[in-house]
Amino acid sequence: MTSPAARSGLSVLFEPRTVALIGASADAQSISARPLRLLRQHGFAGAIYPINPKYTELQGLPVYPSIGEVPEPVDLALVVVPARVVPGVLEECAAAGVGCAMVITSGFAEAGDAGRALQQAMADIAARTDLRIAGPNCEGVFNPRTGLCATFSPAVDPEHGFEPVPAGPIAVVSQSGGLAFALLNHTLERGLRVGPVVSTGNEADLGWADYVSYLLDDESVRVVLSFVESFRRPEQLVEVARKAARLRKPIVVAKIGRTEAGRRAAASHTASLVGVDAAYSAALRQLGIMRVDDVDDLLDLAAYFSVGKLPRGRNLAVLTASGGAGAWLADLSAARGLRLPPPSESVQREIRGFIPAYGSVGNPVDITAQAVLGGGFERALDLLAHSPEFDIVAPVGTLVREERFFQTLDEFRAAIAETETAIVFYSYTRASNRVIGALNELDVPCFPTPGRAARAMSSAVEYAEFLRGIDDVRLFEGRESATWPAPAGGLSEAGVRAYLAPLGIPSPEEQLVQSADEAVQAFKALGGHPVALKVQSPGLAHKSDIGGVRLGLTSAAAVRAAFDDVAGAVPDGSREGVLVQRMAPPGGAEVLVAARREPGLGPVVVVGFGGLDVESNADVTLSMAPVSALTARAMLEDLRGTGVLYGTRGRPGLDVDALIRAIARISELAAGLPSHVATVEINPLLVLPRGEGVLMLDAAMELEEVADDVD
Amino acid sequence: MTSPAARSGLSVLFEPRTVALIGASADAQSISARPLRLLRQHGFAGAIYPINPKYTELQGLPVYPSIGEVPEPVDLALVVVPARVVPGVLEECAAAGVGCAMVITSGFAEAGDAGRALQQAMADIAARTDLRIAGPNCEGVFNPRTGLCATFSPAVDPEHGFEPVPAGPIAVVSQSGGLAFALLNHTLERGLRVGPVVSTGNEADLGWADYVSYLLDDESVRVVLSFVESFRRPEQLVEVARKAARLRKPIVVAKIGRTEAGRRAAASHTASLVGVDAAYSAALRQLGIMRVDDVDDLLDLAAYFSVGKLPRGRNLAVLTASGGAGAWLADLSAARGLRLPPPSESVQREIRGFIPAYGSVGNPVDITAQAVLGGGFERALDLLAHSPEFDIVAPVGTLVREERFFQTLDEFRAAIAETETAIVFYSYTRASNRVIGALNELDVPCFPTPGRAARAMSSAVEYAEFLRGIDDVRLFEGRESATWPAPAGGLSEAGVRAYLAPLGIPSPEEQLVQSADEAVQAFKALGGHPVALKVQSPGLAHKSDIGGVRLGLTSAAAVRAAFDDVAGAVPDGSREGVLVQRMAPPGGAEVLVAARREPGLGPVVVVGFGGLDVESNADVTLSMAPVSALTARAMLEDLRGTGVLYGTRGRPGLDVDALIRAIARISELAAGLPSHVATVEINPLLVLPRGEGVLMLDAAMELEEVADDVD
Repeated sequence: MTSPAARSGLSVLFEPRTVALIGASADAQSISARPLRLLRQHGFAGAIYPINPKYTELQGLPVYPSIGEVPEPVDLALVVVPARVVPGVLEECAAAGVGCAMVITSGFAEAGDAGRALQQAMADIAARTDLRIAGPNCEGVFNPRTGLCATFSPAVDPEHGFEPVPAGPIAVVSQSGGLAFALLNHTLERGLRVGPVVSTGNEADLGWADYVSYLLDDESVRVVLSFVESFRRPEQLVEVARKAARLRKPIVVAKIGRTEAGRRAAASHTASLVGVDAAYSAALRQLGIMRVDDVDDLLDLAAYFSVGKLPRGRNLAVLTASGGAGAWLADLSAARGLRLPPPSESVQREIRGFIPAYGSVGNPVDITAQAVLGGGFERALDLLAHSPEFDIVAPVGTLVREERFFQTLDEFRAAIAETETAIVFYSYTRASNRVIGALNELDVPCFPTPGRAARAMSSAVEYAEFLRGIDDVRLFEGRESATWPAPAGGLSEAGVRAYLAPLGIPSPEEQLVQSADEAVQAFKALGGHPVALKVQSPGLAHKSDIGGVRLGLTSAAAVRAAFDDVAGAVPDGSREGVLVQRMAPPGGAEVLVAARREPGLGPVVVVGFGGLDVESNADVTLSMAPVSALTARAMLEDLRGTGVLYGTRGRPGLDVDALIRAIARISELAAGLPSHVATVEINPLLVLPRGEGVLMLDAAMELEEVADDVD
Repeated sequence: MTSPAARSGLSVLFEPRTVALIGASADAQSISARPLRLLRQHGFAGAIYPINPKYTELQGLPVYPSIGEVPEPVDLALVVVPARVVPGVLEECAAAGVGCAMVITSGFAEAGDAGRALQQAMADIAARTDLRIAGPNCEGVFNPRTGLCATFSPAVDPEHGFEPVPAGPIAVVSQSGGLAFALLNHTLERGLRVGPVVSTGNEADLGWADYVSYLLDDESVRVVLSFVESFRRPEQLVEVARKAARLRKPIVVAKIGRTEAGRRAAASHTASLVGVDAAYSAALRQLGIMRVDDVDDLLDLAAYFSVGKLPRGRNLAVLTASGGAGAWLADLSAARGLRLPPPSESVQREIRGFIPAYGSVGNPVDITAQAVLGGGFERALDLLAHSPEFDIVAPVGTLVREERFFQTLDEFRAAIAETETAIVFYSYTRASNRVIGALNELDVPCFPTPGRAARAMSSAVEYAEFLRGIDDVRLFEGRESATWPAPAGGLSEAGVRAYLAPLGIPSPEEQLVQSADEAVQAFKALGGHPVALKVQSPGLAHKSDIGGVRLGLTSAAAVRAAFDDVAGAVPDGSREGVLVQRMAPPGGAEVLVAARREPGLGPVVVVGFGGLDVESNADVTLSMAPVSALTARAMLEDLRGTGVLYGTRGRPGLDVDALIRAIARISELAAGLPSHVATVEINPLLVLPRGEGVLMLDAAMELEEVADDVD
C-alpha cells in the first residue's frame, strides 16, 4: 500500500481514503464534535478515526488515544485541538506518516506574536517532513464526490436544511472559511453543481496556488471560484495561470483590495497613480484570471463556465417572444461590447414565414407570443443556432411553467443539436433548479436577469479571446530578461537619458551648460530654434515644481535671462548644470511610460496620458513586464485618451507603432530593473506624426528609499 | 352611489369595487378565460361580471351579453376581444359609465398602420368621454390588497406555484407586461412584499406618469419600481418627480436605451457627445429618479426603500464576526463612496472589554465568533447604533440557522431600539424569507451579497442627499425663463458673440477686418500682443477644420502672411471678414459649455473638458436647464478633468466660481432657446486663474435643419 505522504499532490486532502479527527469531542454542540457527525451524515465511505485520549468510543466508533495508534496509514487528519498543542500533534502526524493535516484551530498569525510563533513552528514541520499542512484558522474541506464533509460549517449541515446534490464541475478555494461555505450555499441555491470546496485559512504551508493548481488537474473540475484577501505568494500566480490557460479552465477571483490599499496609502511615487489594487486587476486580466467584485459575479461566471460553450466571437443573436425582456438583454449585451448584427437575408426570410407581421426579424428576433404556440420558438432557434454569422444565441423566455418546459424539451434539444454556437438562456421568471439542471445538461447556462446573462456572455467572449491570444503573449513564453546594470546613485535627467540609451528611444538635441554664455552658445548651435532650459541635479525628478524649467525660449536674450532663474532653483553644490534642449515640434501627443517593480507582483510597465496632469486625469494602465507588441497595443486601447493617437478633426495620425515599440522596450527594462531602482519614468514621451517616431522629452528615476520588507 | 367615472383618479383601476371581463371565454386554456379564474382564486371580493354574448354562465357566474346590460356601475372593464372590435366595445363602456377600461388585446400601434388607426380611435374615445383607458397590448393589473388579479400572467397563477402573500409597500409600473409580472415574481422570491403592479402597454390614453403619480399618493406605497422603454410624454417627468420628492418616495427606473440610440445614431452635432441615453441618465438623476441597469438593481433598491431608514450621512460602521465577509462589505462600500471611520475611543474601549484580543475594534468591528456566543454581537450593535458618528450600521452574519436567529431576535430588537441610525443586514448565507420578513419588521433591510448591500446603502445615501438638496435646486422652484430673441439665420462667430452679449461673459479683445493691411493695424492696435486670425462666415462652426484659423501670431509680418491663408479658406461671397483676436493669457483651462434642446427632455446645458478633443475624451455631462449654482458645481464634480480647475503641481487654482456663474447663465439661455436653434456652444470657454474670470474664446450656433417630428 502506498504511504499517504507519498501519494501524488493533494489527493490526500481532497480524496482521502482515511480521515482522522484529532480532538474529536463528545459535546454535540461543539465545533470539535461536528465533523464526525457531518462525515457520517454525508455518507463518507472511507475509514474514520476519532482521536482523543479522553474517550474510547464516540458515535459508535472506536476512539484512539493518539494518531500513532491508528492501525492503518491516514490520508487526512483534521486537527481541532487548542493552538498551543497543535505543533506537537503535527509532529506526531508527521511521524505517523499522515498525508495531510488540516488545522481548523484559530489563534495563530491572526492573534499576535505568540500565535505567529506557533504558525512558524507549523511551517517548519512542513518544511522538514513529508507532512503537508492546510490552515490553520480554516473552516475545512468538502468534496461531494466522496461525501467528504470535513468541516464544522452550518452551511452543509443537514440539521440546518442542507440537502446533498450530485457533485459538479465548480471548485471553490476561499481564504475566508465563512465565505467558502457561503459560496457553496449560494451556488447550490442557483441550481448549479459544486465539486471540491476548501477553506485555506492562514496558509502556513499549503497556499492558494497549491489548491488551485491541484484542482485544475482534477478532470471533473471545469471552473475554479475563489475569494482572496491577499496573494501571499504572488510569484506563483503566473505558474497557476499558465496551467489554467493550457487546460482552458477559467479561474474567477473576488479579490478585496482593502489590505493593500491601506499598506500603500501613503505612497507618493508613480505607484499611487494606479494603486496596487489596480495593478492586481491589470495583472490578473493579463493572466486570464477573471477578477470580479461581488458574490453574484462569481455565481454568474460559475453558471456560464460550468456548462457553457466558449463563443467563437462576439456576434450575438437574441431570440424572444417578449419585446421588453429581449430589448433589455440586447441593450445590456451591446453595452458590454457584444455585437448584434441582423440575421442573414435568407434566415430573415425563413423566420418571416412563420411569425405574425408585427413580429421582428431584426436582432432581437421577436417572434411574438402567437408564434410560440406553433413551435416557432424552436424553429427560429434552430435557424439562428446554425447560422454561421452568430457565435452566441440567447433565447429569452419565461420558464415559470415547468411542465410546459419539459413538454417542449425534445424540440429545444433538437433545435440546438450539432452546433458549435454557444446557447445561453435568459428566463425572465424564476426557473426551478430542475429546469436549470435540464438546460445545463444541454450545455446551456441559464440566467435570471438580463444583466447577469450579458455579463456572463461578455466574460465568456473575453476569456475565449484571451485563450486565442495566448500564443502572442510573451509572458506565457517564459522568456527571461537581461538585468540592466545598476545606476550609480541618484541621476539627473541627463544622467537618466544616458542610462536609457540602450533603449534606442531618441531624445531632442541638447547640450549641458554651466553659464549663461554657454547657454546662449548652445541656443545658437541648435540653429536658433526655440529651446527649453532645465536645471540638472542628481535625483531631482520634478524640476518644474521648483522653478527649474523654462520652455519656449526663442531669442538669445530670453535664454540669457532665463539661465539665472533656472540655475538658481538648485543650490550650486548639487547642480550638474543646465540642459539647453531644442523644443519639440508641435503636433504630437504626450504619453507617460514607466518601468517599476510592484511589491507582490514583480516588474510592471505603466502607460498613461496627461503629461504633467497625469495625476488629475488618472488615465493610466499597467501590465506585468515584459509585454509583447500585442499587449502594448491592448494597453493603449484601455486608455480614454487613445483617440488623439489616431488623428481627430483633421489632425494627422501619430506614430502609434513607434510608441508600441517603445512600450515593449521599456517593459524589458522593467523586467530587468536592478533591485534598488523603484521607478524609471519617461514623462512626457512625445509621440510624433506617423513615420516620425517618438521623442523622450523628459526622464527621471527613483531609487528604493527603504528595504522592501513586505511579507 | 358615485359614478365610477367620477371616482377620483385611478382608484377605479387599482381598487375597483366591480370588474367586468369583456370577452371572457369558456376555453380554460385561453388567455381570455384566465382572468376570471385568477380573480376568484386570489379572492377578489368585489362583483365580477363576465361579458360575452355566446354564454349565459361561466364558472358558475351569470354572463351578460354586453356591458350595457350589467345591473350596476362598473369600475374596471378588462377587455380581451379582438383588436378590430375594441373601439366599439370602448364606446359601449363609455356609454355605460365604466370608470376604466383596460385593453389586454394586442395588434395596435405595435402592428402597423391599421393597428395605429385603431389605437388612435381609442385615444379619441378617451379624449371625448369620461372613460379612462389602460393599454392596449398590456398584461393587466394586480393588487394583492384586494385580490385584484386582472391578468393572464402565469407568474401569479396558483396553478404554476404562485402562493399569495400579504400586500406590501412596493409598487411596480412596467411598459413590458412580461417584466411587470416577472418583477413581482422576483420580488416575492426575495422575501419582499409587493403592492399594486400594472403593465402599461402601448399607453394610448393612460401613461407612465399617470400610474406613477397615482401610486405615489397611495399611502401604503413606499417605493415605485419601473421598467421603461421610452418616456412617451417626457414633459410629465418633472411633475411626477416633484411629487415623489415632496412625498419622499423614491422612484427606481430601469430604462433601456436602445430605441433612442437607434433613432439618433446618425446625429453628428453636440448631442452625440453625450447621446440621448446619457441625457436621460443625467436628467433622471437631477430629478431624484434612480436609474438602474438590471433586475437585481431594482430588487436591491426595493429591498432597501421598502423598509429601510434614510441615512443622515455617509458614515458606515460594519460589524462582523467573519473577517472575510466584513472586509468584503467594507471594501465595496468604500468603493461606492461611503466613509468608514473608526468608532470613537470610548466605544472602542467598551467593545474591547468583551471581545478576544485577536478581535478588532477598527472598522469593520470584528468581534470574532467567540464573542458572538456571549451576546457580544448585540452589545456591539447597540453601541454602534447609538453612536452619533455613524449614519448606517451594517451587521454582517450568517442567518442560515433560522432557529438561532429567532432565539436572539429580542436582543437584536433591543439593540437597535430608539435609534435614527439606518441598520442594514448582510447575511453571507441564505436567509429564509421568514427571517428577512422579521428583520424588515424592524425597518432593517437584508441583503444576500456584499455588493448588493453596498449598492443599496450608497443609493440610500445619495437619495437622502438629494432630498436635503432640493431647496437649492431651481428646477424644483418651477421658475420660468425668458425666451431669447430669435437669431437672424446662421451666424458667424462674431455674430454669435453679439447674440450672447447679454450673458455677460467676456470675450478677448478683437477686431473684424477685411484686408491684410487692416489686420496688421488691428494687431498693432491690440498692443502687439500675440493674436489669432479666424475667418468669419455665417453658420460656419468648425473654422479650424478648413484651415480658417491661425493662432499665436507675434509679428506684423506673420499677421500679414496669415491673412490670405485664413481668408482663403472661405469663398469671397460667404465671408464676413477675418477676426483679429488677442490670444488668451497662458495658464487657464479650456471648457466646453453648450445650451441645447434635447428631444423628449427639453432644454439642457452641457459641460465638458477637452477643447477640440472633447469628442475623443468624452468627458462631458449635462443637466436639464436651468440649473442653480449648486447643480452647476455638482456637474463639474462629474467630470474626470475637474482636477485642473483646483490647481495641481504648483499651478494656481482657477476661477471656478466664475465658471459656475457662466454655466448657470448659459443654462438660462438654454431654457429660453428659440425653437429653431439646436445648439449654442461656447468652446473653448477659458477659465482663468482665481479672481480673473472666464473668457469666451470661441462660440458657434447650430440651427435645426429639419422639423422635429419625434412623436
